[in-house]
Parts: sequence; C-alpha cells; structure tokens
Amino acid sequence: MFSSGKVVQLFYDVASPYSWLAFEVLCRYRNVWNIDLKFKPAFLPGVIYGSGNQPAVMNPSKLTYIVSDLTLLSEYFGVPMFRPSDLSEKDTLSAMRFVTALAEKEKEGDMLVERVSRELWKRKWRTHQDITQPASLTEAGLKAGLSANVVKEILSLSKSQPIKDKLKSVTQEALEYKCFGFPFIVCQVNEKAKVFFGSDRFELMAYFMGEKWMGPHPNKPTAHM
Amino acid sequence: MFSSGKVVQLFYDVASPYSWLAFEVLCRYRNVWNIDLKFKPAFLPGVIYGSGNQPAVMNPSKLTYIVSDLTLLSEYFGVPMFRPSDLSEKDTLSAMRFVTALAEKEKEGDMLVERVSRELWKRKWRTHQDITQPASLTEAGLKAGLSANVVKEILSLSKSQPIKDKLKSVTQEALEYKCFGFPFIVCQVNEKAKVFFGSDRFELMAYFMGEKWMGPHPNKPTAHM
Repeated sequence: MFSSGKVVQLFYDVASPYSWLAFEVLCRYRNVWNIDLKFKPAFLPGVIYGSGNQPAVMNPSKLTYIVSDLTLLSEYFGVPMFRPSDLSEKDTLSAMRFVTALAEKEKEGDMLVERVSRELWKRKWRTHQDITQPASLTEAGLKAGLSANVVKEILSLSKSQPIKDKLKSVTQEALEYKCFGFPFIVCQVNEKAKVFFGSDRFELMAYFMGEKWMGPHPNKPTAHM
Repeated sequence: MFSSGKVVQLFYDVASPYSWLAFEVLCRYRNVWNIDLKFKPAFLPGVIYGSGNQPAVMNPSKLTYIVSDLTLLSEYFGVPMFRPSDLSEKDTLSAMRFVTALAEKEKEGDMLVERVSRELWKRKWRTHQDITQPASLTEAGLKAGLSANVVKEILSLSKSQPIKDKLKSVTQEALEYKCFGFPFIVCQVNEKAKVFFGSDRFELMAYFMGEKWMGPHPNKPTAHM
C-alpha cells in the first residue's frame, strides 16, 4: 500500500466534545492531506488523573468558558452539539471498551470504528441519550450499520479481560507521549514527530506537515475562509 | 472619531508568552479588521488564583507540551522566543505596574504601551534579561523610545497607590468576565460580545466578527496559508 509518510494518531474518548471536533476535521482532511489517520480510542479519566491534571470542568470559570467556546466552535466546525444537562457526567468506560472491541475485531480498515464513535458522540453531545447501558451501545451499533449479531459479539467481547487491558494499554501509550487530556494528536512526518493537544492546532499541524489549512470545511470553503 | 463598532480588549501580562503571540497578531490585524484594540495590562497570578485555576506549568506533562507548542508556534507566528531557564519564574508585578502607569499617563493613544510591553516580552522571552528591577524597566523604557525623564516619572508613578489600585481593578475586571488565564480577549461587535482565551482562537474570532483570518501574517501570507 502506498504510504505518504504522514501518520496521524488521534487519541480520544467520546466523553470529550473537543475530540469530536478534531475527529470530524481529521476525517474531512484524511484524503486532502493524504494522511494515514489512526483512531486510538482511549479513556479520558486515565490520562487526566494519570498525568496529575484536573478536569477543566471542575473550575467554574473554565466551565462557563467551555460552554461559550463550544457553542461557537460547533457552529463554525459544522458539528452541531448541545450541552448535556450535566457536563461533568462522563461515564464512558463501557462505551470506550465497546469501541476498543470493535477496533480489535475490525482488523482491516476502521470504517466501523469511525461510524460507531460518531454515533456515540451524537448520543452524548447532540441528542443527550445514554451511552452507559448495553441497550444504548446496541442502538448506537445498529445505527452505525453493524448487524445485530456483530453488535452482540462486540458487546460480549467488550467485557473480556483482553479488551479491558487493550483500552488500558492505549491509554498508557498516550501517557507515554506526555498526554494530559483529549484530543491528543501524534503527528509523524517521515523522521519528525510532534504532538498536538486540542481541536485548535490544525493550522499549526498543517504548517508542520507542509500542508495547507483551509478551515474546518476543506471541501466547502466558507465565506469567511 | 470613526468607529467600526468592533472593540477588542486584550487582557495580558508579560509573564505569558501566549499573550505575546496574541498581542502581535492583534497589532498586525488592527487595521486589517478595523478594530478598536484596547490594551488591558493586568496581573496573571491575580486571575489564576482569583479564578481558582492552577498554573499550567505546575503540571510536568503540560510543561513539556507548552515548551514544544511554543517552539513551533513562535516560528509559525514569526515571534522568536526561547524558553527561559525557569519557566515558572513569573515575577512581573513591577513590570505590569510600570505598564499600567504608562497607560494612565498616555491618555492619547497607546503606542508607548505597545512598545514598552513588546520590549518587556523580548527581555523575558527572547533575551532572558531581568524585568523585576528599576534599572531593567528603565532600559526597556529607553529602548521603547521614552525619554529618561519620562521613564523616571513613570517609575515613580508605578509605585503609587493609585497605580497599584488600577492594576488590581483591571485584573478584577478580567475576573468579572470569568477570566482564568491570559491572553483573555473580550470582543464586542455592535450588540454582541464574546470572550476568547488563548492565542488559538483568531480564526474563530474572525468568524464571529464577520472578518477574514489570513494566518498570523495578514500582510505577508506564508506559503502555507
């Protein structure tokens, strides 16, 4: 397979709305920048506490800012989202094990990981539906195009020790890159590597890779870009 | 005086390298976007502790990231800076009182506040010279084009109670906008107002104002923009 020499790893958790923005932008730019985009489903509390960080939403001023920031960003990025009633409710362990199991199962490509992750973000940040219960994960899986049998298999697999260990090891991998929150993006271009935190470093990432940033809609430039 | 209806207030402290990036970008865009740019010299520890935040540099992973991030950002923004030996050394109280005194003295315009702030950032983040002692502030003032007499007057004024109170009140003003760090930018367009934190929201700010973001060099687009 042809390789452009540009590998971009996205460490994320569906608990993180900024990760959703980064995920959509990277999916849109995958072919534009010709990057080998690798999804790295991981567990946000693992990197927050593992790095000695504090959740931003615990600070009232930051929480106020994040709500205002996300409102404008989601409009500008074209990723509609709305604030769930409780922004600090972040129980995504089952959901991220579900995505991890799917990633392990889907050896060829990552189309299903992409679709299921998007459905989970939609439930959590747009329609405010549960993502902690098996029935909720089943619904998300079916909506993403998995068959009922595959959903059942992935659900069962997601509770196995190897999958629990896999999620831990990907989270640990992020910590080894000195990650302290998501989205965390590891960008490798030939011999060079650089990490980027947040959904606001794409212009800088493009500069690093020698590519062009055309705003959040590369295939549909807005009037303001 | 003609007003475009776009008022942009930049709350900053020369302790903050990200504030320097924001300051230079806003100075470059002042005429491009036709904004009424208002410098608001304030005191970083006042907003960090006043908002219950924690300095990012106290977290080892964040510190590693900030150094890497600033290295690439300063290159991309064309604002050369180098990491001082001790990034957590942030005693800028005298320096910010000096800038505040100058702002109070300079009723017409803010050219001197701009020049002196830039000299202080250069000393702290480029040449790693002291900015705590009167002799250092004098040097920065002279380099910025102040006369020896004016420097002397501003130094004396900077130690007065009204100036100490003024710096406190501008810092308090930032806290009232729910500020938790610098740069903190309050953007008012006619009836609408929005706050932006950091030096990575200019594209979003342009979208908010109905203006165009052309990268960090609006008058000299780079090959990658």
